[in-house]
Amino acid sequence: MSIGVENLTALDIREILRTGEIIGDPYRPVTGVAPPDEAKEGDLTFVFSAEWLRSLSNVRASVVVLPQMEVSPSTDVTYILVDRIEEALIRILSLFLRPVVDRNVGVSPLAFVSPKATVEDRVVVYPFSFVDEGVCLGEGTVIMSHVFVGKGATIGRGCTLYPGVVVYPGVVVEEGCIIHAGAVLGSDGFGYVEHQGKRVKIPQVGSVKVERGVEIGANSCVDRATMGTTVVGEGTKIDNLVQIGHNVKIGKHCAFAGQVGISGSVKVGDRVLMGGQAGVADHASIGSGVMIGAKSGLAGKVEDGSVVMGIPALPHMFFKRVQASLLRLPEMVKRLRRLEKAVEEMRHGGY
Amino acid sequence: MSIGVENLTALDIREILRTGEIIGDPYRPVTGVAPPDEAKEGDLTFVFSAEWLRSLSNVRASVVVLPQMEVSPSTDVTYILVDRIEEALIRILSLFLRPVVDRNVGVSPLAFVSPKATVEDRVVVYPFSFVDEGVCLGEGTVIMSHVFVGKGATIGRGCTLYPGVVVYPGVVVEEGCIIHAGAVLGSDGFGYVEHQGKRVKIPQVGSVKVERGVEIGANSCVDRATMGTTVVGEGTKIDNLVQIGHNVKIGKHCAFAGQVGISGSVKVGDRVLMGGQAGVADHASIGSGVMIGAKSGLAGKVEDGSVVMGIPALPHMFFKRVQASLLRLPEMVKRLRRLEKAVEEMRHGGY
Amino acid sequence: MSIGVENLTALDIREILRTGEIIGDPYRPVTGVAPPDEAKEGDLTFVFSAEWLRSLSNVRASVVVLPQMEVSPSTDVTYILVDRIEEALIRILSLFLRPVVDRNVGVSPLAFVSPKATVEDRVVVYPFSFVDEGVCLGEGTVIMSHVFVGKGATIGRGCTLYPGVVVYPGVVVEEGCIIHAGAVLGSDGFGYVEHQGKRVKIPQVGSVKVERGVEIGANSCVDRATMGTTVVGEGTKIDNLVQIGHNVKIGKHCAFAGQVGISGSVKVGDRVLMGGQAGVADHASIGSGVMIGAKSGLAGKVEDGSVVMGIPALPHMFFKRVQASLLRLPEMVKRLRRLEKAVEEMRHGGY
Repeated sequence: MSIGVENLTALDIREILRTGEIIGDPYRPVTGVAPPDEAKEGDLTFVFSAEWLRSLSNVRASVVVLPQMEVSPSTDVTYILVDRIEEALIRILSLFLRPVVDRNVGVSPLAFVSPKATVEDRVVVYPFSFVDEGVCLGEGTVIMSHVFVGKGATIGRGCTLYPGVVVYPGVVVEEGCIIHAGAVLGSDGFGYVEHQGKRVKIPQVGSVKVERGVEIGANSCVDRATMGTTVVGEGTKIDNLVQIGHNVKIGKHCAFAGQVGISGSVKVGDRVLMGGQAGVADHASIGSGVMIGAKSGLAGKVEDGSVVMGIPALPHMFFKRVQASLLRLPEMVKRLRRLEKAVEEMRHGGY
Repeated sequence: MSIGVENLTALDIREILRTGEIIGDPYRPVTGVAPPDEAKEGDLTFVFSAEWLRSLSNVRASVVVLPQMEVSPSTDVTYILVDRIEEALIRILSLFLRPVVDRNVGVSPLAFVSPKATVEDRVVVYPFSFVDEGVCLGEGTVIMSHVFVGKGATIGRGCTLYPGVVVYPGVVVEEGCIIHAGAVLGSDGFGYVEHQGKRVKIPQVGSVKVERGVEIGANSCVDRATMGTTVVGEGTKIDNLVQIGHNVKIGKHCAFAGQVGISGSVKVGDRVLMGGQAGVADHASIGSGVMIGAKSGLAGKVEDGSVVMGIPALPHMFFKRVQASLLRLPEMVKRLRRLEKAVEEMRHGGY
Repeated sequence: MSIGVENLTALDIREILRTGEIIGDPYRPVTGVAPPDEAKEGDLTFVFSAEWLRSLSNVRASVVVLPQMEVSPSTDVTYILVDRIEEALIRILSLFLRPVVDRNVGVSPLAFVSPKATVEDRVVVYPFSFVDEGVCLGEGTVIMSHVFVGKGATIGRGCTLYPGVVVYPGVVVEEGCIIHAGAVLGSDGFGYVEHQGKRVKIPQVGSVKVERGVEIGANSCVDRATMGTTVVGEGTKIDNLVQIGHNVKIGKHCAFAGQVGISGSVKVGDRVLMGGQAGVADHASIGSGVMIGAKSGLAGKVEDGSVVMGIPALPHMFFKRVQASLLRLPEMVKRLRRLEKAVEEMRHGGY
C-alpha cells in the first residue's frame, strides 16, 4: 500500500482520497505528514473539528485535510474538505508508512526452523528466531528476530510477530494478527494449591487461542488455560503491558488500553472497552458493549452496555455523584459538627 | 511424569489416583481433560462442590472427579468421588502435561556458552542463548532460547528459564526455580541523587537472590540491590508483569498476582498474598501471613496476619464499612442539607 | 572508573573521596560494601542521618561513611565524616561496580550487523543481536545480546542497550542513554477508528526520540507517534514496566517510578516526578516541577509545581483532608442518623 511520496501535491492527495473539495492552490507540494502542532512547511496535517481549527492560531502545515466546514481561503495553506475524515486519515497515513519488514530476508539461514515445521509460501523468518517442530507458519507470515515459536504452535496467514515475541507450545494464532515486541502468549496460568503452608503448582495443561485480526501490544502476556483454552476474540485490540490470565474468554472487537489486568477465568463480551490500568477480578463476567473507565476495579457481573468506573466500579453517573460528594467531605464534617452543636444548644438552651 | 493418555478409562484414572469411589461405568473412555463448561464427550473434568455440580445444568464430560457428596448415577457420566480433590487435580493434570522441553537438544551448538562457564550434567541450552563466563548452570537445568545469563550468575539444579529471560551478571537463582518468558532478574535499581536539577545515577552494585522453588511470571522484573541483595524467598510465586524494586526482601511461600509493584527497600514476611495491581511504597514493612486486596496501596508497617485493602490500605472490615458509607454519600449530602434547613427553621420559625 | 578493591583501608577511602574526617583506626581494611542492616565485618556502609545511626543498635560494618555529626569513637568501627554524603555514596559505589560489558567482544561474529549499517569506533555488539540496514551505532555504544535495532534507527555515542531491547525502525536514541533489558522503543501507538463495530488500525507512521542521558527500565515500552514524534526528554529516568503512549512529549530530568502509564498525546513538563503505578489520561498536560503520588490518576491540566495525588488526583493537602474525612465516614453516617432523630423528636416531641 506504500507508494512513492516524492513530488506529491494537494491534487495528488485528493486523487488518492478519490473525494474531497480543494480550497487553495491544488499544486502545493506535500513532502511529509505531521500532527497540527508539529507540522511545518511542506507537511500535510489533519484537523477534526472547527473548534480544533480555531484553536490552532497559526497552522504551519501546507495542506490541511478536514471535515466539511467553512474555511477562509489562504495563500499559505491548501485545504481539502472531506466527508469521512477518519477514512481519509487512514488512507493518507498508509502512504507514509515505512515498511518494517524486508521480504527478501525469506527464511534466514541464521534462524532455526525445525525440518518438522510447516512453512507456507512467502513466509519471512528473521535471523535468530527459533521455530520448533510441529509448528505451522501460514502464508505470508512474518517472524521478526528473536522470536520463539514452541512445539506444535500454529501461526495463521499474514501475521506479524515482532522481535522477541514468545509463543509457548501449542498456542494458536489465527490469520492477520499483529503481535508486538516482547509479548508472551501461553505462559503458565498462576494456579497453586496450598499444602502445609506451601504452594504446589497446578499443572497448566490448557492452551491459548488468539482469533483472527487481533493485535497485541508490546510486553503483554496471555496465560494458557489450566485446562481448556484462553481465548482472545476476533478483532480485539490489546495495548502494551496488559495481563490476560488463564481461562479468560474475551469476545470480539474489544479494545483494552495499556496495563489492563484481567484475572483468571474472567468472561468478557464483545466490543468491550477498558481504560488504562483497569483490573478485573477472577471469575468476573463483563457483558457486551461495556465501557470501563481507566484505573477501575471490577468484580462480579457487569450487565451489557454498562458504563462503569471506580474501585469498585460503579455505574458512571452514580460514580460522578459519589466523586462530587467526596470533594465536599471535609466541608461536610464541619457542617455536621456545627449541626450537632446547634441541636445540642436547642435541646438545652431554653428554646 | 507424563504418561501415555491413550485408551484411558475411568478405572485407569482411579488407579492413577490410588483412591476414589467410582459411580457409573468404570470402563468409560477418557480422551482429554477440560473445565466443566468446555468439556465434551470423552473429557474428564473436575467439580469442587455440590453447588457447583448443581449449577452445571448439563455437564457433557464423560468422567467427573469430585469431592465426597451424594450424586445420582447417570448412564452418560461416570463419577469418581475422592477425599482430596486438589491432590486429584494435580495428579491427573500432570498426565496431560505436554513436555515443553526436548532434552535431546543438549547444549545446542547454536547457543553461545562460554568455555569459562560450568555446565553440569543433563543441562539443556536451546539455540541462541548466551551464557557468559563464570556462570554455573546446575544439573538438569533447562535454558530455552534467547536467554541471557550474565557473568558470574548462578542457576541452580533443575531450573527452567523460558525464552527471552535475562539474568544480569552475578544474580543467583537457586534450585528448582521456574522463570517465565521475558522476565528480567538483576536490572539496575531505580536510584538517583538530585544535583543541580538533574538526576545522577547511584551505581547499583548489589545483586539478586532467588531462593529455591520460586516461580516468576512472564515479563516480571526483579531489580538488583543498590548494595547488598534483593531477595525472593523460598517457594514464593510471582505472577506476570510484577515489579520488585531494589533491596526488597520477600519471605517464603508468598504469592503475588499480576502487575503487583513493590518499591525499593520493602520487607515482606512469609506467606503474604497480594491481589493483582497492588502496590507497596518504599521502605514499607509487611508482616507474615498478611493478605492484601487487589489494587491496594500500602505504606508503612502492616502487622502479621492483617487483611487489608484500599488506597491507602485499611483493615478489611473497616474498609468494607467505609466503602458502604461511600455509596451513601450523595444521599448524605441531601440529608445534611435537609437537616440544616430544619434546624434553621426551628431556630427562627417560632417553635 | 572501577579500580581494584583489594587491600583497601579507611584511609584509601578518604583518599578516593578527596575529603572527609576519619574517626577511629585509619588502617582498618575494607573488603566490601553493604547496606547498614546487611553489613558485616570488613564492609563499608553509609548512614544518612543521626536518627538513622541511633536506630542501628549495633552496626557490624567496619567503616561507616556519614554526614557531619557527633559520633563516639569506637574500637570496632572507623567513621568517615563527609560534607556531601550523596556524592560520597556515588563515588564509593563506583569502585565496587562490576563491569557488565566485556569490551573485547567487539562486534561479535555471532551477531548480525548489516553491511549497510554504520558502526563507529569501539562499538560492542554481543552475539545474537540484529542490526538492520541504515542503522548508526555511535562511538563506544554497547549492544548486549538479543537486541533488535530496526532499519534506519540511530543509537548515539556511549549508550548501553541491555539484552532483549527492541528498537523499532527509525527510532532515535541520543548519546549516553541506558536502555534496560526487554524495553521496547517504537512499537505502534494504540490507535483505531471504529467502523461498523470493528476497529480499523490507524497506520502509525511517526517515530520516537529518546534524548541524551535518558535511562529506561526493564520491559518498559515507548510507543511511536501516529504522526510526528514521541519524545522522552534529556536526562529523564524511567523505571521498569512503564508505558509511554504515542505522541507523548516528556520534558527533561523527570523521574517516573515503576508501572507508571502515560496515555497518548500527553504533555509532561520538566523535572516531573511520578510515583509507582500512577496513570495519566490521554491529552492531559502536566506542568513542570509537578509531583504526582503513587497510584494517582490524572486528567486535564496540572499547573507547574503542583503536588497532587489520588484518583482523580487532587492537590496534596486537600487530598489528605478528604482521606482523613473518609476514615470518619462510617461514624458520620451514625451521627447523621442520630441528628435526624433528635430533630424529628424536637419537631414533634413537644418542646
